[in-house]
Amino acid sequence: MTETGNIRIKREDLENLCTQVFIKLGMPESHARDSAEILVAADARGIGSHGVARLWRYVNGITAGIMLPVTESEVVHRTPISFVLDAKGGIGLSLSKRVMSEVVETAKKSGFAAASVRDSNHFGIAGYYALMAVPEDMIGIVMTNTAALGVPTFGKEAMFGTNPIAVAVPALNQPPFVLDMATTVVTRGKVETYERDEKPLPEGWAVNTEGLDTQDAESLLKDMLYQAGGGILPLGGRGETFGGHKGFGLGVLVDILTAVTSGGTFGKTVKDSAETSARVCHFFAAIKIDLFRKPEEFLAAMDVLLTELRDAEPATGQERVYYAGLKEFEHEQLCERVGIPVPEKVWDRLAGIADDLQLTMPAQMEKG
Amino acid sequence: MTETGNIRIKREDLENLCTQVFIKLGMPESHARDSAEILVAADARGIGSHGVARLWRYVNGITAGIMLPVTESEVVHRTPISFVLDAKGGIGLSLSKRVMSEVVETAKKSGFAAASVRDSNHFGIAGYYALMAVPEDMIGIVMTNTAALGVPTFGKEAMFGTNPIAVAVPALNQPPFVLDMATTVVTRGKVETYERDEKPLPEGWAVNTEGLDTQDAESLLKDMLYQAGGGILPLGGRGETFGGHKGFGLGVLVDILTAVTSGGTFGKTVKDSAETSARVCHFFAAIKIDLFRKPEEFLAAMDVLLTELRDAEPATGQERVYYAGLKEFEHEQLCERVGIPVPEKVWDRLAGIADDLQLTMPAQMEKG
Repeated sequence: MTETGNIRIKREDLENLCTQVFIKLGMPESHARDSAEILVAADARGIGSHGVARLWRYVNGITAGIMLPVTESEVVHRTPISFVLDAKGGIGLSLSKRVMSEVVETAKKSGFAAASVRDSNHFGIAGYYALMAVPEDMIGIVMTNTAALGVPTFGKEAMFGTNPIAVAVPALNQPPFVLDMATTVVTRGKVETYERDEKPLPEGWAVNTEGLDTQDAESLLKDMLYQAGGGILPLGGRGETFGGHKGFGLGVLVDILTAVTSGGTFGKTVKDSAETSARVCHFFAAIKIDLFRKPEEFLAAMDVLLTELRDAEPATGQERVYYAGLKEFEHEQLCERVGIPVPEKVWDRLAGIADDLQLTMPAQMEKG
Repeated sequence: MTETGNIRIKREDLENLCTQVFIKLGMPESHARDSAEILVAADARGIGSHGVARLWRYVNGITAGIMLPVTESEVVHRTPISFVLDAKGGIGLSLSKRVMSEVVETAKKSGFAAASVRDSNHFGIAGYYALMAVPEDMIGIVMTNTAALGVPTFGKEAMFGTNPIAVAVPALNQPPFVLDMATTVVTRGKVETYERDEKPLPEGWAVNTEGLDTQDAESLLKDMLYQAGGGILPLGGRGETFGGHKGFGLGVLVDILTAVTSGGTFGKTVKDSAETSARVCHFFAAIKIDLFRKPEEFLAAMDVLLTELRDAEPATGQERVYYAGLKEFEHEQLCERVGIPVPEKVWDRLAGIADDLQLTMPAQMEKG
């Protein structure tokens, strides 16, 4: 969790640094603060791949003009319970927070509300926005499409993204249920880790340009970058034996709800470059629990369900069973005490960004 | 698809037989006809495990008094866009069709509607109900929980069902997108096939009473029947390496939306017996496309997406890429021409039921 070699920083210090970076890049202060908070929330929840390790992508994206720090996003469709926003290349982070806020506010009156967004950029962890529904006794549902890295069942070319789905559901005294999952077996970040460690990929993660199993992380990453064919498999792996067609279906469903609803870009035309990220589409929805049941009854039943799961007998050799969101909740609690872990390499990159922008790096916490 | 050894029956003949069976068991005629239509739709879509092969379970369930052919289901909660139904042990099939009809009718006015149902029984294929939204330019979402057969990531006991999720989305000229997936790697039916053929299970489908990999179909089925521990793994397999925790999260999500919302039974307390099936909970929702976009634009974009997927380059050694629902659509078209395939063994069982109830079996089609 907080491995050796990680530097530890107070959460607010890390948020302040990122806020200053975004302000220097031209973002209005309140947007900068929201964006920083969302990025650091990923690190706090133990999803470092989507946290400050990605700050350089935003810096590059803004510098290259692919991501716009100030935009006039436009509502292109509206009903009493829904809207569609054209983000016009804006940063996904703060914009998505504002969209989900409006969705939650609308759902307070109507019981259900939804929005989709096109022509946006990376928005960090989907779970952050899904969780915004939870304090209002609502279920939050959030998705985003991403650059195409996923290969269809029986296919050989990347035709859809890692397309995450997040669903957050409140409970009474238990930490909320928060499912936040890529619909591919793994994300590109995991493949990169194996490449760095020069380890063969587990068979069932990815296929080569012929659509056959590959365990070679280095050529896979190159093939994906140059869209040469091959890519990561959908959840369930290759073929249908382990349900790969289900993961494929979930990935396409995300493309439908994010991009087909919003008139945005989907499928194989969503592309990253070496320097920055693809423009993507998002989906947000909130459902009030009292559509179905008195919230207090629902929340109490959630506690029964979640407690049964966390108390489930572990397999031989395992310590515990975790329901979705429990590990992340515990990581966040730990970070409150010991600070946010930042790998040395990410710290050096942050220092480089701070140096370029003439900002001071925050103090490291004493190792406890 | 229509393997040798299969008998072929005209769709309407098979529907008529099942209708007569349900009527003989005490079901009102219109409910009997709906139930028969839903069962046979599974066979027509190539999902034989959920079709007439299951008729005996309904016969046994009704005979044993576990499933009630006539019930006074009761709406226990209602809002302008939602309701919760207590099915009071009724047959899931015709009841679910009536619930989804009402959900679709409500969504015509409000843009979104949802319902959950508790204390119901098997409802056949979830995709049938999801598809009911499609002709109305809506997205249909349907789930059901089932008897607990699924083992949590790092666990060893069955704590949730095969809990399917179905989502149907209309397109313009392409067959609709219909994702209809168990959230476990496979269903019990697949394990039974391996047992019959005396084949070892693929590693990654199931664990034994210690929570360790098992390939022994026979002892797995016994352990599941007697709730001795062990069971089928969530989509993504054992541990987290291939994303098993994601399938686990999806399975729990289904329990939440079906059972926690409706005040029904969830998790490990949902149990089949050797003779019949568990009482279960369902979830139904419909979302109008015009919440987001003019339907004609949406449908045209769906055709672009789906055509790209079905035209995707196949992997070496593979013939085609199928998007979710395409294979089932083509199977249904084939059945219109050549009839519904019924395995000899299922045919014999149907003949036994017909004999008991003094009904005449339909004619077999000539092999073409």
